Amino acid sequence: MATKRPAREPALKTRAGYEFCERHDKLKNRIVLITSGGTTVPLEHNTVRFVDNFSAGTRGSSSAEYFLDHDYAVIFVYRQKSLEPFTRRFIGQQFFDMLDIADNGQSTVITVKPASVDVFAPILAKYKHARESQMILYMSFTSVVDYMWLLRATCECLAAFQERAVLYLAAAVSDFYIPQDKMPTHKIQSGEGPPTISLQLVPKMLAPLVSLWVPHAFVVSFKLETDENLLIAKARDSLNKYKHKLVIANILQTRKHRVVFVTPTTSYEIHLSREQSLQGLEIEEPIVADVVRKHNEFITTSVNHK
Amino acid sequence: MATKRPAREPALKTRAGYEFCERHDKLKNRIVLITSGGTTVPLEHNTVRFVDNFSAGTRGSSSAEYFLDHDYAVIFVYRQKSLEPFTRRFIGQQFFDMLDIADNGQSTVITVKPASVDVFAPILAKYKHARESQMILYMSFTSVVDYMWLLRATCECLAAFQERAVLYLAAAVSDFYIPQDKMPTHKIQSGEGPPTISLQLVPKMLAPLVSLWVPHAFVVSFKLETDENLLIAKARDSLNKYKHKLVIANILQTRKHRVVFVTPTTSYEIHLSREQSLQGLEIEEPIVADVVRKHNEFITTSVNHK
Repeated sequence: MATKRPAREPALKTRAGYEFCERHDKLKNRIVLITSGGTTVPLEHNTVRFVDNFSAGTRGSSSAEYFLDHDYAVIFVYRQKSLEPFTRRFIGQQFFDMLDIADNGQSTVITVKPASVDVFAPILAKYKHARESQMILYMSFTSVVDYMWLLRATCECLAAFQERAVLYLAAAVSDFYIPQDKMPTHKIQSGEGPPTISLQLVPKMLAPLVSLWVPHAFVVSFKLETDENLLIAKARDSLNKYKHKLVIANILQTRKHRVVFVTPTTSYEIHLSREQSLQGLEIEEPIVADVVRKHNEFITTSVNHK
Repeated sequence: MATKRPAREPALKTRAGYEFCERHDKLKNRIVLITSGGTTVPLEHNTVRFVDNFSAGTRGSSSAEYFLDHDYAVIFVYRQKSLEPFTRRFIGQQFFDMLDIADNGQSTVITVKPASVDVFAPILAKYKHARESQMILYMSFTSVVDYMWLLRATCECLAAFQERAVLYLAAAVSDFYIPQDKMPTHKIQSGEGPPTISLQLVPKMLAPLVSLWVPHAFVVSFKLETDENLLIAKARDSLNKYKHKLVIANILQTRKHRVVFVTPTTSYEIHLSREQSLQGLEIEEPIVADVVRKHNEFITTSVNHK
């Protein structure tokens, strides 16, 4: 694996992470690290083309809102330009179309249309509260190498929380990458005929994360498959291999209304009824509620064993 | 090339395109088709992974605003979730942070902070004007196959404009794709070892577009390279091959302040000084002004030859 540390911002990002963690650790808060969005694998040094993983960041960004509701401090590690908590609900034209502009002769006033205020005000208020009370820290990545550095650096900040930390690894991380020395410097030229891209396996971060970086934390990973027949078996394999607490397994096509919680000893489904979906309930609300419940049990058990 | 027409929306999109074109053709307006953003090449039928082209859609979305300033009707064909005209300037947290929320006891009022109104009001006003006067039509694509169908369908609508149509092909279109029959159905499994991806060349759309679909239009293509030494030669090759009017050539690293206009007989640079960049001038403003000037000359010459 190309482990050269990227030159951009990591020191700054880590410092912000340390300050955030130190403050919340002193307050004895619970904390969750949420990773969200897909990673890229550049195909060229001067990146024009890259392999990407499908992920808008819906799961991670909505879950962040629900963890804030449960009074967790949130470190939101997300793919640049993927969805973010709160703002995900109003993007681009939706936002502009919500606004009225009026000129009263002396000055121009722009207001949110009354019809939109009912929906928008509570979301904006929650956003402002999370920012002002400094309950959320945003850190972004683009490539799979950026992601790995950021995850490792953030885990260092989190270790002090011991059982009070949850890792909620919802990002879609590439399994493959192209080693630095096999990457062409310039844009691949089509005149040279179609290229063949040789990928290598990315080392699994979950192994050192669970056993070394945050050995006392409550670690949750996600498993996205398109083939129902593989889902539970692959989730169980992952638990056996990495020894963490929970895999949230889902199928690409049904992931918005059904997931399976797989623990070392059990597996059960969380799903939304058609009615709940129509009412606008998001599955991340019961998912997070159940993770929080499990985290409570985990803390209680850990304390009793000390 | 997999030419099976995608099942989603194309009929609807085309109908909207026809109505838009018919109205502006009756008004004898000029029209520009702008393509913007990168295309994806899915690696699996149930798409989890795809190859993407680097493009946020900055060039296309900002150019659309300047074409509107020149009274062109704009068909904006863009990669879903890439930047859009006007809204590109205020995204996510920038937007939320611009807003004040106040409760006057009876109702909640959300307003744009006075400090942000000066910058925001003219942009919002232009956006609203473009929408209300129906000078802009948005159509989105994701994969390279979607893109090709949309481009062809839109060209059919544009043909009637003859010389009054500009095609401004700023999208970053993949040169490669994976044929349907070589694409696996499910997510590629990492347990099977790193995969090798074999890509094939995408047929160049510019050839039929220039010679058959819109033979009277003013067609502008873009060339993005990372190697300065290849830039002009490759732009000139493209003009020789496809016989269109103009290639706007740029280097990845300097594309925000320097481009080269390459025509069959000339080449010259458009660039922003450091001062202009600091003042917030965007290079798309002089680029579009020059394309419009060239389009004027082209119309005059065409009329004189009739």
